[in-house]
Amino acid sequence: MGMIDEAGTQSEGLPLGFQWGAVRAGIKVSGNLDVAVAVAPGGGRAAACYTRNRVVAAPVTVGRGHLASTGGRVSAILVNAGNANCATGEAGLEACRMTCVAAAKSLGCIFDEVFPSSTGIIGVPLPTEKIVAALPGLRASLGDTPAHAMSFATAILTTDTKLKVARAVVDVDGREVHLFGVAKGAGMIAPELGVPVATQPPGPAHATMLVYLFTDLKAGTEDLRALLAPAVERSFNTISIDGDTSTNDTVLLWASGASGVSAGVRVNEAFASALSLVCGSLAQQIVADGEGVSHVVTLHVTGAETEADARQVARTIANSPLCKTAWSSGDPNWGRLLAAAGRSGVAIQPERMTIAISNVVVFEEGVRAAGYDEAEAHAAMRDREYTITIDLGEGEAECRFVTCDLTAEYVRINADYST
Amino acid sequence: MGMIDEAGTQSEGLPLGFQWGAVRAGIKVSGNLDVAVAVAPGGGRAAACYTRNRVVAAPVTVGRGHLASTGGRVSAILVNAGNANCATGEAGLEACRMTCVAAAKSLGCIFDEVFPSSTGIIGVPLPTEKIVAALPGLRASLGDTPAHAMSFATAILTTDTKLKVARAVVDVDGREVHLFGVAKGAGMIAPELGVPVATQPPGPAHATMLVYLFTDLKAGTEDLRALLAPAVERSFNTISIDGDTSTNDTVLLWASGASGVSAGVRVNEAFASALSLVCGSLAQQIVADGEGVSHVVTLHVTGAETEADARQVARTIANSPLCKTAWSSGDPNWGRLLAAAGRSGVAIQPERMTIAISNVVVFEEGVRAAGYDEAEAHAAMRDREYTITIDLGEGEAECRFVTCDLTAEYVRINADYST
Repeated sequence: MGMIDEAGTQSEGLPLGFQWGAVRAGIKVSGNLDVAVAVAPGGGRAAACYTRNRVVAAPVTVGRGHLASTGGRVSAILVNAGNANCATGEAGLEACRMTCVAAAKSLGCIFDEVFPSSTGIIGVPLPTEKIVAALPGLRASLGDTPAHAMSFATAILTTDTKLKVARAVVDVDGREVHLFGVAKGAGMIAPELGVPVATQPPGPAHATMLVYLFTDLKAGTEDLRALLAPAVERSFNTISIDGDTSTNDTVLLWASGASGVSAGVRVNEAFASALSLVCGSLAQQIVADGEGVSHVVTLHVTGAETEADARQVARTIANSPLCKTAWSSGDPNWGRLLAAAGRSGVAIQPERMTIAISNVVVFEEGVRAAGYDEAEAHAAMRDREYTITIDLGEGEAECRFVTCDLTAEYVRINADYST
Repeated sequence: MGMIDEAGTQSEGLPLGFQWGAVRAGIKVSGNLDVAVAVAPGGGRAAACYTRNRVVAAPVTVGRGHLASTGGRVSAILVNAGNANCATGEAGLEACRMTCVAAAKSLGCIFDEVFPSSTGIIGVPLPTEKIVAALPGLRASLGDTPAHAMSFATAILTTDTKLKVARAVVDVDGREVHLFGVAKGAGMIAPELGVPVATQPPGPAHATMLVYLFTDLKAGTEDLRALLAPAVERSFNTISIDGDTSTNDTVLLWASGASGVSAGVRVNEAFASALSLVCGSLAQQIVADGEGVSHVVTLHVTGAETEADARQVARTIANSPLCKTAWSSGDPNWGRLLAAAGRSGVAIQPERMTIAISNVVVFEEGVRAAGYDEAEAHAAMRDREYTITIDLGEGEAECRFVTCDLTAEYVRINADYST
């Protein structure tokens, strides 16, 4: 049985077998916490998904290599915010490896049991000296309380305005398995994560959405991969803030085993539900805190021939500037929804479609719905969060896709440049 | 030999055999000119391309049917702005046909020799009574002077702030063939036009970019189709303002034959050059007048394996909100260009790529270019128009794609909604 707590206010409920810490290393211009570590003193097993972008940051390449060489053993993760270590060539790979070696030495593990991540600006050399100099402070900052976990969650943020955490507890015959998820991401968010496979494909990866899922379940890499894939597919792979898939997107599921509860058919079923809830909550939190966002819109595409069709229609609408700008002012301009669906590449037939904004049907049988009341639709769009339902009238498949509006504030955040 | 004159200031140079006119019919809220006609009193032949959007406006369906039933004969075109007559069902088709019948009666031709177009809001019934009531005034407004042509070009505009016209003259052994192009479009611009084929495919089309190419060449529909396809492919199909392909996009090439010069291998070659210049000029003018645009950026993708690959990389960058917002402030954030190329679906290899902003190389051999000077790149991006070159290092194919920045003004224009 999964229970979820998004606010992170409970003092109990963190998974056993982990410690978290963070320091200010001077990578963020703001001077805020910017390097974080988490360790599993008793060791751990992990599975990961990475962006499908052809351009990938050094830490993705290195992290992928480490998981492959250790067979999924992870003792520590090392994350910096403020610099993506992407498009930095061989020197970037070397810089990333060097920080892993230094972290391993400081934390007392083997270098390839350190899983690295970076997020921030692309194309600027990683300031390795700042990270190495921060390691003694990082080690000293480690602890297993909620405050420690929150400092980790804070340090990995970039343009985010809010912490993103979610928790669940799975009860297995009176014993508890804990799951704690931490995420960052507010822009360059349209993840298309390759689901983990036994043999990791070689080649590029890069990251602006970072998600770490800590659990004290006792599980091997195969179980973790099988659990992570479907959870990612219906959470992080069905959100978009701006359609720009990042080069560093990474989701790591990391199990310490400290609960003593072992993976198995019945346990995995309950754990999968909890994982799905936690990933769904984190995905929703990412969109809700998207750059400049004033409205969170769930696109519920139904009646598709396949789930892929449903997702393609949803993604096209989610990334349409004309749909997104209309949402920002609560303009029920449903013609833009229809036009975007029409250019999605899916063989839709407008005369079979029905579109509803919240509970207001706006389009059916090829024309504006009879009795359509624009004021009523506009009123529904004043809510900060609402659902638009697009029924294609073609089949039984469906998807839910979470996205947001496009505001002048988004433009301001991303156009900000001072000489 | 083709000569181009974009300004439309010459009093001579319009194609023979056409008349233009326009009136205020009260469809535009502004009260400006909103219904336009052009007639070929001696008859004419035409070929057209339409949007590949699955949702199409009534006039596209009707116009397509008219061209098919007459074998390409067109005596008049009837355009209204302010209402797209899209998502209006059977009633919309009937309304469109009714206006064609009324126009034919008024202008003295057969109903299916009238080619209709509409542009404006989607989903609102066409005010046919306003169009029919305007017909006597439209007939009275006809004339063949530049002022008449300009009134036509003015009436078809919607959110455009400028007239869009281009002209060329082809000299054929001392005789002149004239080409005059008129366009409208400023938003919902990312045309993907199906090139004309002998048998027009049935089914949907819809329009916010409207382009009319008037010529006094004497040519049959087959020649016109063969001339139009390549000209459209490398002009209107390689621009994007906002990535939102419209439901009404239409390009019509219409030949009166009044020059007395007949199509043929040698004539067609010269005419094709002129047509390419005129279409290229109109496409550039559309982007330059795009909603909220402050910078026009030509993406020159070179070294691709195929032209389709080059275009896919260009289109992904052109529609990336993070690239577009960076251009608005002249921010040389080339990591965003690289990240967008990486998510394009084309199998790029970053270490083989070179990226230059204007003449400043920013990225090569997998890293920031040696000697890269950010201030120099920023200075180049202050120009209103500049080129970004992305060499993929894979092959010999290339494309030029014209696009623009994304500004807070674009958001304001498209979010504008008052209850």
